[in-house]
Amino acid sequence: MINKLAIIGTGLIGGSLARALREGGYVREIVAHTRSLNSMKLAVELGVADYAETSIEGAAEGADMIIVSVPVGTMPEVFGRLAAIASRECIITDVGSVKSRIIQAAREALGEHFGRFVPGHPIAGTEQSGVASARADLFFGHRVILTPDAVTDPGAVAAVRSMWEAAGGIVREMTAASHDAVLAASSHLPHVLAYALVDMLVRKDEHREIFEFAAGGFRDFTRIASSDPTMWRDICLENREQIVALIENYSKDLGEIAKAISRDDGQWLIKTFTRAKHARENYILPPPADSPDAIE
Amino acid sequence: MINKLAIIGTGLIGGSLARALREGGYVREIVAHTRSLNSMKLAVELGVADYAETSIEGAAEGADMIIVSVPVGTMPEVFGRLAAIASRECIITDVGSVKSRIIQAAREALGEHFGRFVPGHPIAGTEQSGVASARADLFFGHRVILTPDAVTDPGAVAAVRSMWEAAGGIVREMTAASHDAVLAASSHLPHVLAYALVDMLVRKDEHREIFEFAAGGFRDFTRIASSDPTMWRDICLENREQIVALIENYSKDLGEIAKAISRDDGQWLIKTFTRAKHARENYILPPPADSPDAIE
Repeated sequence: MINKLAIIGTGLIGGSLARALREGGYVREIVAHTRSLNSMKLAVELGVADYAETSIEGAAEGADMIIVSVPVGTMPEVFGRLAAIASRECIITDVGSVKSRIIQAAREALGEHFGRFVPGHPIAGTEQSGVASARADLFFGHRVILTPDAVTDPGAVAAVRSMWEAAGGIVREMTAASHDAVLAASSHLPHVLAYALVDMLVRKDEHREIFEFAAGGFRDFTRIASSDPTMWRDICLENREQIVALIENYSKDLGEIAKAISRDDGQWLIKTFTRAKHARENYILPPPADSPDAIE
Repeated sequence: MINKLAIIGTGLIGGSLARALREGGYVREIVAHTRSLNSMKLAVELGVADYAETSIEGAAEGADMIIVSVPVGTMPEVFGRLAAIASRECIITDVGSVKSRIIQAAREALGEHFGRFVPGHPIAGTEQSGVASARADLFFGHRVILTPDAVTDPGAVAAVRSMWEAAGGIVREMTAASHDAVLAASSHLPHVLAYALVDMLVRKDEHREIFEFAAGGFRDFTRIASSDPTMWRDICLENREQIVALIENYSKDLGEIAKAISRDDGQWLIKTFTRAKHARENYILPPPADSPDAIE
């Protein structure tokens, strides 16, 4: 049970967490802070937060749990502001899609409060963004990864775990390095690939015909290209080594496919496509029942 | 109205067309032929066809419309068999995802019957295959492309157009070259990209973690990697020039993204991701109502 929850950045993720904890009776009071006055107003109007504060300091004051749910590029600045004002008992956690660099920034900014910072990442979201899309069931049945540091207070980890479980999440712990490698492959690279494909096609002369004759496969394949560009710029830059290495690996593999096509090697193509088909069917489970089809 | 419809290759597409025309009262008699005895038996058991013939010749005899719905790599062989036995009045059409090479094969194989061959391609399908997945509404609200040759009989084109309209399709005509360029971009390349991604990831040591933490975005992005490998091998080989050129173009663009990430160029990334997001939102329409979310 949380007495006062401060949500710094009330977008889809922060807003959905607030809704989930409110519905579950897990929080007494929710205060919102975002950079945009309109978003703050909307968060209160929609009942996502009880009230809003126009300063981070005001929102954080007296909070026992602070959720930092801003784009990862903005997190270092937010940590700097929180270092000065968070109480010694207060727990800070984040929802960023990248962990190593965020932990490094938190270590530098939070000083002696760093032990009460619990790095987190709910594997949920949609290509939509903004508090208006927030929904209480967004995390239901979805993985939430926590990547505590060696010095992170176990009590703080337990409190953040309980909070996510109250929101319906399935909590797993792993190292930040593992998180960044795994998510680069399952989320960051696919987003880059989808953006790259749509951007390549829209610059072609025949782009109207291409999009007119695109059906459901293309629509699904490119859905994540409708994601928020600022968020994904930040993720690309904050997890750059992993993502650039995967892009290089992938381009090399694409080159192998092109070579197999050019040399008329149907057997190689069948083998490769079949391995992919089986992998997808064996490893990728259908979406959890009663859950929005969440991404990221 | 079709008196006797012969479906050569009763998979998802051929089976769904049979179901749609039967439900619409557009056909008196449907005969199925496939290479697999089990599929033929199933097609009759499921009511997709009235009866089956174990030879192409038997199925084609007396048909006024023959649908060739086998993988594109098998079409030249089927055309060769049909040349000898199709009656002068009979119309032959296909559903292949590649048109230029299929037309060339038909021209060579069909001889004087080539003028009654109408090249076609319904832009519908799912990652499923086989007659058990066939559904009468598969084509409802979806584009069907016809690419008649200069010598194609206009009466035959009109008959094939009416047939697809009876199945709920929206018929468009274009040149085979345009079709192959447009579909390479909107369908063939995305399938290659999805196969390549899943295949790259399953060969990694940490593939179990990668797939465990993959959420809806990854699931959607890779759905088409569950498509039939034989079909996609054939498409890759039959439309190879277009597909290889697009793979090269795409790899170059991915390289530019990797460079922008490496040089910390957030502005370039925002511009590129935003252009993609807007393109997708402006050009890609939601799926038609009352229709399965069809692909390809």
